[in-house]
Amino acid sequence: MVDCIIIGSGVAGISAALTLKANGKTALIFGSKALSEKIEKAELIQNYPGLSNVTGKGFVAALKEQLKDAKIEIIEEKVSGVYAMKEKFAVATQQGGMYESKSVILACGVESVKQIEGEDAYLGRGVSACATCDGFLYKGKTIAVFCTSKRLEHEIGYLADIAKKVYLIPMYKGVEIVRDNVEIIRKMPTKIDGAKRVERVCFGQDAVEIDGMFVLRECTSPAILVGGLDMQDGHVKVNRDMSTNLKGCYAAGDCTGRPYQYAKAVGEGNVAAHSVSEFLK
Amino acid sequence: MVDCIIIGSGVAGISAALTLKANGKTALIFGSKALSEKIEKAELIQNYPGLSNVTGKGFVAALKEQLKDAKIEIIEEKVSGVYAMKEKFAVATQQGGMYESKSVILACGVESVKQIEGEDAYLGRGVSACATCDGFLYKGKTIAVFCTSKRLEHEIGYLADIAKKVYLIPMYKGVEIVRDNVEIIRKMPTKIDGAKRVERVCFGQDAVEIDGMFVLRECTSPAILVGGLDMQDGHVKVNRDMSTNLKGCYAAGDCTGRPYQYAKAVGEGNVAAHSVSEFLK
Repeated sequence: MVDCIIIGSGVAGISAALTLKANGKTALIFGSKALSEKIEKAELIQNYPGLSNVTGKGFVAALKEQLKDAKIEIIEEKVSGVYAMKEKFAVATQQGGMYESKSVILACGVESVKQIEGEDAYLGRGVSACATCDGFLYKGKTIAVFCTSKRLEHEIGYLADIAKKVYLIPMYKGVEIVRDNVEIIRKMPTKIDGAKRVERVCFGQDAVEIDGMFVLRECTSPAILVGGLDMQDGHVKVNRDMSTNLKGCYAAGDCTGRPYQYAKAVGEGNVAAHSVSEFLK
Repeated sequence: MVDCIIIGSGVAGISAALTLKANGKTALIFGSKALSEKIEKAELIQNYPGLSNVTGKGFVAALKEQLKDAKIEIIEEKVSGVYAMKEKFAVATQQGGMYESKSVILACGVESVKQIEGEDAYLGRGVSACATCDGFLYKGKTIAVFCTSKRLEHEIGYLADIAKKVYLIPMYKGVEIVRDNVEIIRKMPTKIDGAKRVERVCFGQDAVEIDGMFVLRECTSPAILVGGLDMQDGHVKVNRDMSTNLKGCYAAGDCTGRPYQYAKAVGEGNVAAHSVSEFLK
């Protein structure tokens, strides 16, 4: 069992990982080896102390180099659930992994594409955030897939192999997937609707009938990942030491609220790591 | 009148200055063109995201370059008082300057040399934190000067020109000042004592009789700088948005508490600057 599991490979997660390492703690960090799509897309960062007028690409390159120097490896699995148990946490991934730690730092960012009406209400009743977890339920059925990032396109392929028909609602540019059973809808859904279970996704006056819907987001809401986590205005509610309402569970970066800034995320990752070190005593 | 006055040129102050600049706000930053003695002395920084295994000197050089790029100049005056007035702040410096701003960010760091017993109690009753402000009061008299940084040695020279006798209690290495009327005491004072006013400084069982005492610290306590500021365990009490109990007055960096880390200071400076931008609306 490691000291800490860090969820997210943006600057908050990296900052936490570097500090835990410096403090001699063991940690696993889940995310993408490409680190963060959001940082990479930044044209020019003007206010990050120490790196003058750096591009997002330049920042990512510097961070990758630093992780290599510090011998920190990112595990490329997507966390599907965090379970607070007595004296430890169990962390499950969409890839079927199960990991244990003494503490958790949520650094999973914030999703820029807003929630769809009904998304939360129908979660677990026909709405799923995880293709590999729930895809098998829709063999030979009709589903909609709302996807916010090109990086998740392989999950659409996975679902298209299972379902009879897929309505793909992409929120990203450069859709590459081409399948006979995939129909692309280029509209923003206004509502997920049904009775006991999901029955349709609406686009204003229009709607398509479905058996289920996958909402694939780069950043799954921490409230969905961690049961019982206190939220405030859509963000994780934290104290000055980055602790949450759950003992041993900390949060850092965009998921704790505005300003969505690298410097702020880096600072909070650092503080969360120090708080974890204190907690482990 | 500028939008904001930033007190301190460590990483918290620099982070705030860069962000205010990026937000199109006007600001003055008070500190040292050498930035921060504390950073410069750092041997190796292992956990600041973006700069892999950088030395303190390297970090300072990068920050100086960045300030130059951003056309931010540091005013080399030492702030002696911050006065919250109706809808604005007046900031006085030891050099006799008086500046006005709509908001203030305290980023004045934390003094590593602990308080002397009686220091607070006798402040204004024979104890002073400012040589140029109060030196003239001790013409031809006997004073003690407690000094925590070589950078402040010129103030000792200033006092030695005025006083008849100076007991210098240096807390730094490499004392250079040589004057007939300066006697060096290489002991840690245990107590500042007297009746209505200061009469002596004690070193355990020993003591020297004095008319006044100067306590020259690199970082003056924010509680001394700003009247009415709420403190907690020796640090400025702040909320998550870095606001203090005084409207328009924010704080960032080591002065708000542990961990004393660059990443934390950078993050808080950023958040304070964003909060100032919100406040100015």
